[in-house]
Amino acid sequence: MDTKRPTVPAAEEILGSYYPVLDHGFVALVDYMGSDEAVEQAARVSYGAGTRKVSQTRGLIRYLCLHRHTTPSEMVELKFHCAMPMFVARQWIRHRTASVNELSARYSLMPLLFYRPDAEHFALQSEANKQGREIGAPAEVYREAVERWDRLRTAAGEAYAWMLAEDVAREIARIDLPLSTYTQWYWKVDLHNLLHFLSLRVDPRAQWEIQEFARAIAGMVKRVAPLSYEAWVDYDLESRPLTRAERDVLSRLVEAGDDTLSARAGASVSAAEMKEAGLSPREVRELVEKLQSPERPDFELDLSRFRSAEEVAAEMYEAVPADFQ
Amino acid sequence: MDTKRPTVPAAEEILGSYYPVLDHGFVALVDYMGSDEAVEQAARVSYGAGTRKVSQTRGLIRYLCLHRHTTPSEMVELKFHCAMPMFVARQWIRHRTASVNELSARYSLMPLLFYRPDAEHFALQSEANKQGREIGAPAEVYREAVERWDRLRTAAGEAYAWMLAEDVAREIARIDLPLSTYTQWYWKVDLHNLLHFLSLRVDPRAQWEIQEFARAIAGMVKRVAPLSYEAWVDYDLESRPLTRAERDVLSRLVEAGDDTLSARAGASVSAAEMKEAGLSPREVRELVEKLQSPERPDFELDLSRFRSAEEVAAEMYEAVPADFQ
Amino acid sequence: MDTKRPTVPAAEEILGSYYPVLDHGFVALVDYMGSDEAVEQAARVSYGAGTRKVSQTRGLIRYLCLHRHTTPSEMVELKFHCAMPMFVARQWIRHRTASVNELSARYSLMPLLFYRPDAEHFALQSEANKQGREIGAPAEVYREAVERWDRLRTAAGEAYAWMLAEDVAREIARIDLPLSTYTQWYWKVDLHNLLHFLSLRVDPRAQWEIQEFARAIAGMVKRVAPLSYEAWVDYDLESRPLTRAERDVLSRLVEAGDDTLSARAGASVSAAEMKEAGLSPREVRELVEKLQSPERPDFELDLSRFRSAEEVAAEMYEAVPADFQ
Amino acid sequence: MDTKRPTVPAAEEILGSYYPVLDHGFVALVDYMGSDEAVEQAARVSYGAGTRKVSQTRGLIRYLCLHRHTTPSEMVELKFHCAMPMFVARQWIRHRTASVNELSARYSLMPLLFYRPDAEHFALQSEANKQGREIGAPAEVYREAVERWDRLRTAAGEAYAWMLAEDVAREIARIDLPLSTYTQWYWKVDLHNLLHFLSLRVDPRAQWEIQEFARAIAGMVKRVAPLSYEAWVDYDLESRPLTRAERDVLSRLVEAGDDTLSARAGASVSAAEMKEAGLSPREVRELVEKLQSPERPDFELDLSRFRSAEEVAAEMYEAVPADFQ
Repeated sequence: MDTKRPTVPAAEEILGSYYPVLDHGFVALVDYMGSDEAVEQAARVSYGAGTRKVSQTRGLIRYLCLHRHTTPSEMVELKFHCAMPMFVARQWIRHRTASVNELSARYSLMPLLFYRPDAEHFALQSEANKQGREIGAPAEVYREAVERWDRLRTAAGEAYAWMLAEDVAREIARIDLPLSTYTQWYWKVDLHNLLHFLSLRVDPRAQWEIQEFARAIAGMVKRVAPLSYEAWVDYDLESRPLTRAERDVLSRLVEAGDDTLSARAGASVSAAEMKEAGLSPREVRELVEKLQSPERPDFELDLSRFRSAEEVAAEMYEAVPADFQ
Repeated sequence: MDTKRPTVPAAEEILGSYYPVLDHGFVALVDYMGSDEAVEQAARVSYGAGTRKVSQTRGLIRYLCLHRHTTPSEMVELKFHCAMPMFVARQWIRHRTASVNELSARYSLMPLLFYRPDAEHFALQSEANKQGREIGAPAEVYREAVERWDRLRTAAGEAYAWMLAEDVAREIARIDLPLSTYTQWYWKVDLHNLLHFLSLRVDPRAQWEIQEFARAIAGMVKRVAPLSYEAWVDYDLESRPLTRAERDVLSRLVEAGDDTLSARAGASVSAAEMKEAGLSPREVRELVEKLQSPERPDFELDLSRFRSAEEVAAEMYEAVPADFQ
Repeated sequence: MDTKRPTVPAAEEILGSYYPVLDHGFVALVDYMGSDEAVEQAARVSYGAGTRKVSQTRGLIRYLCLHRHTTPSEMVELKFHCAMPMFVARQWIRHRTASVNELSARYSLMPLLFYRPDAEHFALQSEANKQGREIGAPAEVYREAVERWDRLRTAAGEAYAWMLAEDVAREIARIDLPLSTYTQWYWKVDLHNLLHFLSLRVDPRAQWEIQEFARAIAGMVKRVAPLSYEAWVDYDLESRPLTRAERDVLSRLVEAGDDTLSARAGASVSAAEMKEAGLSPREVRELVEKLQSPERPDFELDLSRFRSAEEVAAEMYEAVPADFQ
Repeated sequence: MDTKRPTVPAAEEILGSYYPVLDHGFVALVDYMGSDEAVEQAARVSYGAGTRKVSQTRGLIRYLCLHRHTTPSEMVELKFHCAMPMFVARQWIRHRTASVNELSARYSLMPLLFYRPDAEHFALQSEANKQGREIGAPAEVYREAVERWDRLRTAAGEAYAWMLAEDVAREIARIDLPLSTYTQWYWKVDLHNLLHFLSLRVDPRAQWEIQEFARAIAGMVKRVAPLSYEAWVDYDLESRPLTRAERDVLSRLVEAGDDTLSARAGASVSAAEMKEAGLSPREVRELVEKLQSPERPDFELDLSRFRSAEEVAAEMYEAVPADFQ
């Protein structure tokens, strides 16, 4: 259709197509409003008459991102259709500044689709990170886990279908579906809040399953607002806070000359000195990590993986208990 | 302890005590800030010098409530500790303007407590209300439901405990816990948003289980801010919107004289006329309901039911898989 | 440009054109996302598999509006460019759930445009409504008011230009500009929050100047989402809350038969009885007003009044102090 | 009064006392809910059964702050009564996640109090920082500015009083009051959003006048939640983001050994190399600033400056136009 609204060909290319995530989930970009130009336009209100046009869109957007002038990026809006296991949905919904319409299990019949971790991501409790996981679960443990999952889900699905057949209220019939059951929703969010979501959810400390969704969404943001995406990678995602004590430590190791930064000859800071500066042992480890030259992650989508809306809808429909399709 | 802050004896009486809801849930008021006087104080900034003190606190609060001047009621804040089944938590969390800290199943071990509907509230899918339920499920259906619930939950609990024993990451071990599993959180919200939550959640169209939580909370609000509570019942909860078409219909039936409202002699509006005025058959039924003199609901708490924090904590602790207590 | 996004011809027709409001203000719809169909699509996630398509878009949207299921209407987003006097901006900004980028008087030079009420809207303090106004200010008072406004604004503008010429910081130079000075911003908001804004701001109790802005915006909403607009007029704007006590009173005057509503023969409720039912004298007056058959307001835009972006920008630019253009 | 709620003596000491800011403004802490312990309690829900108590309150709060786990700090709430010039109020109100009740100039008479910058803070437009100011305005420019301010404000005050005497609606009478006029409000905000406000508003790039308010509030936060305050200074206020490119540059200058950080012998990075790494000249200057060992700012309140509520109220009252007191 024809529009006078700003339009982004790279976003149009994937609009309405469904990108698979995990075994039965998906993310689809279904609408968008604005792009990098909308960010600039909003920021330029702040400049108006009497100021010169000092920078191009890219420079301005990078400046805004670096200095946390985030309100202009609220001017871009994206809308997604997503399906995810309920335990992922429960993490996702904690991001409050967004609009959500979820499939209601009070009205609707639930497709009996359950998330089954693959062997690679079936992991042990991490020692280092109390909320994380570590690779290396024995194959036989995974095998038994799969058996237990299969049995439980079959029983839960049968109980659900049986209650529906007995005309039990749907809102009661669903209460023993497991957290691995897939749900779906429309999710609409502005670019500022979306990038904040991504920063937290592509992070290795987030649960791996929600990372997978966040990575797919990051690839879509890259298409809607590529300059904002790039600035986000450089100034937010791959940036690290340098705390007051860390600045103190680094100031002993680096000195600034005319246009040059130099290592101070022979300077070093010992563990004891770092402790005295206020750094805990964990903070020392984190500082070392911050001083690595980071990789620049990429969130490019594999276009060949996209599926059509019809195909996805059919899969959902077929997973509803048979007598109620 | 001693404080210069406004203090409400009726709230202090229940502060930190746990009110049981459903079979294993609870609500406890654990902190509050302000009361009806804080609402008045905030509204009076708007009156300040040059206006007379026209009304007492009650009159002012009723005026504010009737005319939807809601910002002064944001000045009162309440904090609760609550435990509820996850399917209730998923409805509750949709109220975005609140602060929540939930027990994390990534870090923590989940108490294996599950909600089991009692026979009275085990109901059939409603014909009239697509998201509701109706009484009257046969006893043998309930009996079989209980058996299925028991089997499923035992199996889910065993699988959870087995995975923990195998040192599987907690965030994976929990994915097949059913939606009936209890979780818990701290929930902090201002009075305006709390009353909005209550209006939607004590409503008969809400799922019965979340109504139970809302009724307990309403009883606590009544103690923290009794005048705001009373105004909410009269001007919000038991108020109904009278739509444009309904006002048109009523204007044909009622006339206003000097200080008197009278029925227009012989006036009536037929089904056909109501349709012509724009009312659908459902809207006609709703109009009839609006013209009933409403009961004044009460949300008085039964003080004898309160439990101590220690007792509740012990029950939670004992429900964690035995090897991990 | 070509897009796969939902497109609304009636909105495209006015997109990017500037609608004058007051003497130097404007509202322009500069972008939008979604329309009535997006509301339906979001609500239908709640119906999904297993439910029938019971209603057309119009019926569904009216049902959602009547029952305050507001989240689907958050799926539509609108973006405006607006200029308004600062005292209007200060009322407007109180609506928090929106994105705003305002012209910064710290960076930018302010156009010296001031709002001057016309004689018709120059009014006396209302007796009945403590925050309102009443018609009928004497002509000579208006004349003197205009003289005082002119003198003050000339002096304020000269002081501003003088400080700029002396290179005083802009953030200081502007502190004595009057509240009648025009500012401008981009304003982006979802349909749900926009309709709430309109309900409060087209209301006769809002200041007349902000009503003018709200009426222009209502005319734009009518073009973007006509069914949502119509439902808002019928079920929100022209609806009135019928309180608990009012329902009690009306139940004595009206009775429901089979599909018919009738006036109860000879029924009337006296002032004393209304007082006993809990209605204050003000509430009695308001009840009488609620029982009038309401007009259906219209917010049709006069297309001939639209101006081009260039023309408006030129007017703003020319109003900047001359030495700094 | 007696309460079971958590109580903080250092906060009680200043509760309800008014701290002067600028020439006629003030900030008063008028209520609070919770303290550092409430942050810990909320975070510990996330640990519950099965985790050890690994850290004391201080360590936990610092960990939460460093890793941006901000939701527990939403559990603390503070309420202030503040008076500030309207141009400050307009910056302040942009922080949306807060509750505000402002003196309404539609209902109330405005005290005729205006902010007059003192000579020290009357400054020139900054060259380096387009939104800032620089010291050094000539004394004679300041003298003339004061004269112009005095004339304008006298005229604006007289016009306001004249219109009130002519019974012009207050909402119109006030439209030519200057932005330097003081307004006042109640402001309630949770600790997380308050600290975010402080980070932006004690920053040297904020307008100096709002910095003054932020510094007074910071001193009050220090009394309500001292550990959260300290963590905020170390991990937020005096922290700086180290961007992807900056990490790259620093990795060439510093190396990590066993528990030791050392300057790499002879390493330096030239201007050309920094440009190649992606740093703009401005970014290079900012990096140098980040590598300074920062001062630890203090926001201690001078208790001798506090005034009583009665004294402040009397000053406000006397500033209302004389015929209307």
